[in-house]
Amino acid sequence: MMRPMKAVILAVGSELLGVDRLDTNSLKLTRVLERYGVELVGKAVAGDDEAEIAAEIGRRLGQGLLVLVTGGLGPTADDCTRAAAARALGRGLTIDEAQVERMRAMFASFGRKMPEVNRRQAELIDGAELLHNPAGTAPGQLVEVPSGGALFLFPGVPRELEALIGLHLEPWLEKKLGKEGGIERGVIKVACLPESVLEERIAPAYDRFGRADISVLASPSEIRIQFFARGTAAERAARLQEMTSCLTELAGSAVFTDREETTLESAVVEALIAAGATLSTAESCTGGGIATRITSVAGSSAAFAGGAVTYSNEMKTLMVGVPPQLFAEVGAVSREVASAMAEGARQRFGTTYGIAVSGIAGPGGGSPEKPVGTVHLALAGPGDGDLAHRQVRFPGDRERIRRMTEQLALEMLRRSLLGLPLPGEAK
Amino acid sequence: MMRPMKAVILAVGSELLGVDRLDTNSLKLTRVLERYGVELVGKAVAGDDEAEIAAEIGRRLGQGLLVLVTGGLGPTADDCTRAAAARALGRGLTIDEAQVERMRAMFASFGRKMPEVNRRQAELIDGAELLHNPAGTAPGQLVEVPSGGALFLFPGVPRELEALIGLHLEPWLEKKLGKEGGIERGVIKVACLPESVLEERIAPAYDRFGRADISVLASPSEIRIQFFARGTAAERAARLQEMTSCLTELAGSAVFTDREETTLESAVVEALIAAGATLSTAESCTGGGIATRITSVAGSSAAFAGGAVTYSNEMKTLMVGVPPQLFAEVGAVSREVASAMAEGARQRFGTTYGIAVSGIAGPGGGSPEKPVGTVHLALAGPGDGDLAHRQVRFPGDRERIRRMTEQLALEMLRRSLLGLPLPGEAK
Repeated sequence: MMRPMKAVILAVGSELLGVDRLDTNSLKLTRVLERYGVELVGKAVAGDDEAEIAAEIGRRLGQGLLVLVTGGLGPTADDCTRAAAARALGRGLTIDEAQVERMRAMFASFGRKMPEVNRRQAELIDGAELLHNPAGTAPGQLVEVPSGGALFLFPGVPRELEALIGLHLEPWLEKKLGKEGGIERGVIKVACLPESVLEERIAPAYDRFGRADISVLASPSEIRIQFFARGTAAERAARLQEMTSCLTELAGSAVFTDREETTLESAVVEALIAAGATLSTAESCTGGGIATRITSVAGSSAAFAGGAVTYSNEMKTLMVGVPPQLFAEVGAVSREVASAMAEGARQRFGTTYGIAVSGIAGPGGGSPEKPVGTVHLALAGPGDGDLAHRQVRFPGDRERIRRMTEQLALEMLRRSLLGLPLPGEAK
Repeated sequence: MMRPMKAVILAVGSELLGVDRLDTNSLKLTRVLERYGVELVGKAVAGDDEAEIAAEIGRRLGQGLLVLVTGGLGPTADDCTRAAAARALGRGLTIDEAQVERMRAMFASFGRKMPEVNRRQAELIDGAELLHNPAGTAPGQLVEVPSGGALFLFPGVPRELEALIGLHLEPWLEKKLGKEGGIERGVIKVACLPESVLEERIAPAYDRFGRADISVLASPSEIRIQFFARGTAAERAARLQEMTSCLTELAGSAVFTDREETTLESAVVEALIAAGATLSTAESCTGGGIATRITSVAGSSAAFAGGAVTYSNEMKTLMVGVPPQLFAEVGAVSREVASAMAEGARQRFGTTYGIAVSGIAGPGGGSPEKPVGTVHLALAGPGDGDLAHRQVRFPGDRERIRRMTEQLALEMLRRSLLGLPLPGEAK
């Protein structure tokens, strides 16, 4: 085997090439590979096509890789992984009669006679090790190629695959690689910062830790920075801590967490509870999205009282007391109305903070002065005249504009609670 | 190009080789291929590794296939799909200055200066056709290889990919293949019906049209029935119509649409507008989720006034007038409180309908009498004493309970608007 060990995963099954099914088995295998420090260099899906499967297995074994195949070990004519693997290796297939007897006994234990077609499942590649499957009739197979590379065949049924991973793949990896040398994964999450700005900020970390071990994943107004540490368990922990500190320092106060399970909304709820503060909302263009995200956090009732979804002007007046003349004077999408909504919510609902948004999410409703994507956000706080306002113009469609508005509202709140400069101010 | 046309999809991005991300873009491409009768022979995922990407593109173009690549067209150093494709083709890369100008203009329209690093996104493979991207800065590229095979490079951002599929891939396929020979897909969607009940109802359709062409996909309180028709355009249209009528008839009034683009919330908005009715909400355990879904529908402001998120008891009294003694007498999660919330919203907010939910989404807050998952829903309508109520107990975690509550609230409303029996009553 090549050192460090590298692997590919091949999922077999024509159904995995359809319009509504994805290969999810590969994630189970990926977790195990990562734990033992095996680098996954590629994944592939092939239909029930012997030539395709054989070509992929042969090519990847020729590169000295660990090749993990799932699926195509069933008893029917379209199950051709065994034949394809034998062909790729230039070896024969022989029925293992002891395995046939085990399968017969398994059927008998359910009061059934084994159909003759199931004999095919006992076809073993010459020289392969049979991998016992306690959860089904299809055994796995392992072939270690003398010239380098190794091939595992696993059934595609998830619980059978899981059983074989634990019984055969993990012990094999541990024997080959020991427990050390795996990968540990870290993450930091950043809100409301353009990707290009973040990239500039964290460039020194690329130089220090290597670009390959840091990846940046952007979604609307949120970016995940993922990074990896290798080595022994102690080395990994130390390096991960070092990377986390360095990246957090470089990315600045837009970092809202270094924990996988923390979302922007849960960070806000945590900050509210830590500050002993309460919150209410007044939402127009987001239509309740901020409240929905806040209340998606278990335990949010300790800090969140409720809020108003004020979609019409009448509701803005009725629920949070926006003076009706403002709509004629400056329009519903304005600094004045957003500010009145935030202050109205805070006062009427008796909370420490009130956050409000009013904007044009589109596709209709835009004008030359206030195009689609124009949003006013206001945050009323506990101090005298403590009122922050932002006007933005977000790109994209209705869904994206709403999402970005929620993000900015939550981030304004988080920063205010933590005493940080608001978004758009200093780093 | 090989006839019949065959294709492969390659998704690029190291994050897609991680433990928690799957390539879902391929499903969008698969749907289009299917519609034009192009056989998908394989899918692959490669990391941000120029050699791996180049090898896969080169090998597949050498087989005369249509190669569809997504991802790796961003501005950062790890985005190497352009370079890999050029290498696979043995061609150079040249910056398209007209594209650079378009990108600068795009940044300028949002009041930003284009970072210089973005110039890389204008690198065009020599001889390639640039595919304009209206949704982002990364253009696509198309190379038709004289010896057979064709290569499309698409951005990996889903909405950008979708835009390029519609603008460039579909017209290209139609030019090459015409409209005949593909598969047409139909769908009907069903709300708040158990999967086993639905399966029993539609069993006659399996006998009539064949099980292979009908599939059932269940998610919390919503089921999609997908079905396929083959043949010429005329044959497909006729069969699709026949299948749609038959399945809709069998599945009954729980079918809320036979259009892909219709959601339960858009069906509700449509029914509200058709009835000339307006709606307000009062939400406790869903925390604004019903309002958020209603307002996700463009044009919903014609029927949706707004609503109250009444997370605390005080807010239930303050915003929708729930008599405070009810909390002590029967508790917030009760028929009485849900009904008072629905009636209070309807009256205070002056709408035709008021819908309210109060429940225990968990993980905390349950008791032996009112376990987690207990939800009361109430719908107040325009008639005298027009008040419907449902008590349910949903299984699952917080997210699932909230989702199922939203579904049932929307479905109660839809059925009431259409004069259908409410969920749980007759078929």
